[in-house]
Amino acid sequence: MARRKKVYEGKAKILYEGPEPGTLIQYFKDDGAPPVAVAPAANEGKGVLNNRLSEFFMSGLNTIGVPTHFIRRINMREQLVRMAEIIPLEVVVRNFAAGDLTNRLGIPEGTPLPRPIVEYYFKDDKLGTPLVSEEHIIAFNWANQQDLDDMIALALRVNDFLSGVMMGVGIRLADFRLELGRVWEGEFMRLIVADEISPDSCRLWDMRMTEGPDGTIPDPGPLHDVYTELARRLGVMPSNVTHTTKPSLIN
Amino acid sequence: MARRKKVYEGKAKILYEGPEPGTLIQYFKDDGAPPVAVAPAANEGKGVLNNRLSEFFMSGLNTIGVPTHFIRRINMREQLVRMAEIIPLEVVVRNFAAGDLTNRLGIPEGTPLPRPIVEYYFKDDKLGTPLVSEEHIIAFNWANQQDLDDMIALALRVNDFLSGVMMGVGIRLADFRLELGRVWEGEFMRLIVADEISPDSCRLWDMRMTEGPDGTIPDPGPLHDVYTELARRLGVMPSNVTHTTKPSLIN
Ligand SMILES: Nc1ncnc2c1ncn2[C@@H]1O[C@H](COP(=O)(O)OP(=O)(O)O)[C@@H](O)[C@H]1O
Ligand SMILES: Nc1ncnc2c1ncn2[C@@H]1O[C@H](COP(=O)(O)OP(=O)(O)O)[C@@H](O)[C@H]1O
Ligand SMILES: [Mg+2]
Ligand SMILES: [Mg+2]
Repeated sequence: MARRKKVYEGKAKILYEGPEPGTLIQYFKDDGAPPVAVAPAANEGKGVLNNRLSEFFMSGLNTIGVPTHFIRRINMREQLVRMAEIIPLEVVVRNFAAGDLTNRLGIPEGTPLPRPIVEYYFKDDKLGTPLVSEEHIIAFNWANQQDLDDMIALALRVNDFLSGVMMGVGIRLADFRLELGRVWEGEFMRLIVADEISPDSCRLWDMRMTEGPDGTIPDPGPLHDVYTELARRLGVMPSNVTHTTKPSLIN
Repeated sequence: MARRKKVYEGKAKILYEGPEPGTLIQYFKDDGAPPVAVAPAANEGKGVLNNRLSEFFMSGLNTIGVPTHFIRRINMREQLVRMAEIIPLEVVVRNFAAGDLTNRLGIPEGTPLPRPIVEYYFKDDKLGTPLVSEEHIIAFNWANQQDLDDMIALALRVNDFLSGVMMGVGIRLADFRLELGRVWEGEFMRLIVADEISPDSCRLWDMRMTEGPDGTIPDPGPLHDVYTELARRLGVMPSNVTHTTKPSLIN
């Protein structure tokens, strides 16, 4: 492939111009700590695994009819995605209290929430990605009421699906964040899931805990070695050839 | 436990009176072939595995806020459930063409559907569980329009979750069927997922196919040894003590 134009370099990824108009290439770097979930800041090989993992989740979502930017994986660190006009919000869905909900509202970490709670954070690193309400979002025209309704519906579908994937491999999805973007099909605009879905955007707790010395089983805690362990459990380790994602790859 | 009163004996399960009003005990037998999905008619130990598997899926659904009848597992073959007034319909959700959709409408097996298709079958063995339309359902008062709207919403949430669980362990959920029932909380009626979720009610195709002699990877096909293999992949084999379902059991 000829030398490509770099469009953007962020903390965790680089965006290049894609081969066709309306496409981008996402390159997954090894660094970048997520502002909401807690994960190691840099991790050798993390980018390779996040590329695979984001492919796995996004193509799964495409399969069940939740539109995402994912088109196909190109190589170990790159995937082709549909260019979107990113809504400058991080949409966070929480199933169990942790992080900000614990720090700001004092709800003990691990508390199951009465229902999934959807929050919005303004995507601005310099401001520390502050929590905002629907009122702010509409007043500052980051999204309108219809967008918000669509965003909630999409976020809850992603939550149902992703909770299922994680539960299937013994992991609790405590919370995660999404970025959504607009794409146009002629006159018609719709929202798609963009950016990435990976351990950098998900707070994952291990439910396969072994008994403690006193014979009791502890509460689910952080999944250790989260990139490798998640990729291993989902069968998407680059060396794993028995699991083919073929059926869901090209969508 | 004292001798209990048998309430009903079906093809795959026996219902006993539960310890408290409004509860039932579901005993999982080894026999019973599903009318929609294809699975072996009898299978030694199947009941033990279906008891575990239905527990796994139902408690997972409870956790994500989809109400089900599941209260807790009692022993190897029995679980305590909430008694519901069963709507006499099998609600089928299809993601890929198979079974009836192939036989009746000629859509080749394995064809991905443009979106999940929800169908209703009248639950009557003597009539062979015939397909019915919303028109029949409302005319014969099996459910009203509001019930149908709720049933579709529940069925699609179950589909998102279950597709996720299965995808996480390399399995494609081609279709499944649900039974829904009414429960009352004072004046307020709501629908819950009842009966069972198990290989008897799900059509599962294996995505971890090994290369054929010519080096190509075949399309996903039936998951072999489906009860054991699913329980193994989900870590709910009765002998498996490393996977605790503790966090989602008591809901
Ligand atoms: N499909 C897409 N179209 C356009 N921009 C995207 C798309 N997906 C993700 N992005 C943007 O690409 C950038 C990804 O790089 P990242 O390292 O995560 O950046 P940041 O440090 O800003 O979070 C983000 O700014 C994200 O909003
Ligand atoms: N929570 C519940 N409350 C009342 N009835 C239930 C509940 N869950 C399942 N059932 C009913 O229990 C029976 C389960 O036994 P099964 O062997 O599957 O019967 P069948 O041969 O009629 O399918 C079904 O008739 C089903 O509708
Ligand atoms: Mg980012
Ligand atoms: Mg039955």
